[in-house]
Amino acid sequence: MAASAGAEPHAVGLDIGGTKIAGGVVTESGRVLDRTRVPTPPDDQAATLAALLALVDELWARNPGVEAIGLGAAGLVERPGGNARWAPHNTYRRMELRRLLHERTGLPTSVDNDANAAAWAESRFGAGAASGDLVLVTVGTGIGGGLVLDGGIYHGEHGFAGELGHLIVDPEGDRCACGNRGCLEAMASGSTLGRLGREAAAGDPAGRLATLAALDGGPVTGEVVFAAASEGDKVALGLFERIGHWLGVGIASLVTIFDPDLVVVGGGVAATGELLLAPARASFERYVHARDHRDLPPVVPARLGADAGLVGAATLALARH
Amino acid sequence: MAASAGAEPHAVGLDIGGTKIAGGVVTESGRVLDRTRVPTPPDDQAATLAALLALVDELWARNPGVEAIGLGAAGLVERPGGNARWAPHNTYRRMELRRLLHERTGLPTSVDNDANAAAWAESRFGAGAASGDLVLVTVGTGIGGGLVLDGGIYHGEHGFAGELGHLIVDPEGDRCACGNRGCLEAMASGSTLGRLGREAAAGDPAGRLATLAALDGGPVTGEVVFAAASEGDKVALGLFERIGHWLGVGIASLVTIFDPDLVVVGGGVAATGELLLAPARASFERYVHARDHRDLPPVVPARLGADAGLVGAATLALARH
Repeated sequence: MAASAGAEPHAVGLDIGGTKIAGGVVTESGRVLDRTRVPTPPDDQAATLAALLALVDELWARNPGVEAIGLGAAGLVERPGGNARWAPHNTYRRMELRRLLHERTGLPTSVDNDANAAAWAESRFGAGAASGDLVLVTVGTGIGGGLVLDGGIYHGEHGFAGELGHLIVDPEGDRCACGNRGCLEAMASGSTLGRLGREAAAGDPAGRLATLAALDGGPVTGEVVFAAASEGDKVALGLFERIGHWLGVGIASLVTIFDPDLVVVGGGVAATGELLLAPARASFERYVHARDHRDLPPVVPARLGADAGLVGAATLALARH
Repeated sequence: MAASAGAEPHAVGLDIGGTKIAGGVVTESGRVLDRTRVPTPPDDQAATLAALLALVDELWARNPGVEAIGLGAAGLVERPGGNARWAPHNTYRRMELRRLLHERTGLPTSVDNDANAAAWAESRFGAGAASGDLVLVTVGTGIGGGLVLDGGIYHGEHGFAGELGHLIVDPEGDRCACGNRGCLEAMASGSTLGRLGREAAAGDPAGRLATLAALDGGPVTGEVVFAAASEGDKVALGLFERIGHWLGVGIASLVTIFDPDLVVVGGGVAATGELLLAPARASFERYVHARDHRDLPPVVPARLGADAGLVGAATLALARH
């Protein structure tokens, strides 16, 4: 059942990630009136488009007053065309998302990178609502990023700016899903936490990580490491220390580069709270330039949770419409 | 003898580096009418101010129509106050440069970070005159940086943005003059080239580096490494490969973050040309995110040489005045 929008303009917001597509109806002031979600279809652009259109139809039927569609898509999104160029965890290749959605629905449509949309939402309605320049790092399966600078999303020349997960933090480090080595994503993401957990479990089959995974009947994942760390398991806590260390190195470079008012950490792994943020803050404070001669920006958790992408996408669409 | 300014507005531009202060008179369109320079006074803020005022007096006497003063200062410069907060290679600490110069001269005065000023000059009159978003990396004794984004210098919340030399490229890497470890400056600057040259010469007292330094009667410096590399000495060429590799890692991260139209490499070491730029480009292309799915921005040498800082400072002062 959709909540009432009253007279406030509202739009459909869609957020395509590597594993799921989240949809919602969102007002100009960031209120979410309705929500739905489906798994991201694998291996097929036509199926992705069909899934997006089905989400729009469902939400539009329940909320007939929607005025626009805003889409946040993982990976490189061309500006101003709104084409999804490429993403390591998605199948689209130069997919004309903006044109296709607009043609099939007749609604004004705007497309942005998912983490850019989330950064916009956090800067207007979330953790950064009273702040200036804001850097968002989203730590989930991968690591995304968004930059709100001088009051607007910073897109760069083609729309590809803000791929903060692919900052090189250790050129001899682990291999990344993108093909490079030593990206922040390769050292500090949820996938990395899971991989490190599997390595630790393989080396200690009687340990808590292996035991918890066996109880679950599956491999060690980031969630299993979280469960073990929450019980106080020292190995699991050490893995959070390790990915937090690398996240802090990345945040240090970003603060040195951007001198932001605020750093927001979002995404699924950020929901583990201080397990990740405490070691990240310690290493950020160790590595930031001229730490004794500046006021350090707070490093805080995101506030909008899984809604950030669709709230940002919808409110950007309304603002541009 | 000063050249004629004609009717074009002109200003004094000053550029304080770690070793010298350069001054000039510059027109609105970036033409340098007059130049002078003095060594940076060590260990004394009062002497620094006196040196700056003497440069202004000298240039003003020869060019009575100057309308403003623009100053570019190394290190952290507070905005909008124009105070030099701190720099690893200079002695000032919270020095109120803008207020002091304005009070002593009566001229409108603007103060910015030196590499920000240089980036502005390159974006308007130099290598980036036809470009959009521009990233400048200056490789000299240290490494500085400036960002021209969406048509203006990006300053961040306090004016400290763009300290690109202190991007962490290897958290276990060499100690930096700033106190951190593994900064781009610690791995790829002119000082690092000299240090690596001294290490190589110590290990091979009969080699070309040691021989050239002995002929000069001094230690191996970056200049000695350059001289040896220019003769084709393999050890010296290898050192350029090494600092170029790290510079390219840093540029890769910057392109991944900013998606700029152009990367400009300036500063004294950049004057060695392809010795530095060829290995930097190779490693940039290896480490940039999604290299097969994007158009890479050119990585080009700066065009304004040692004038960039004072040209940028003076034209910024005229634009703000």
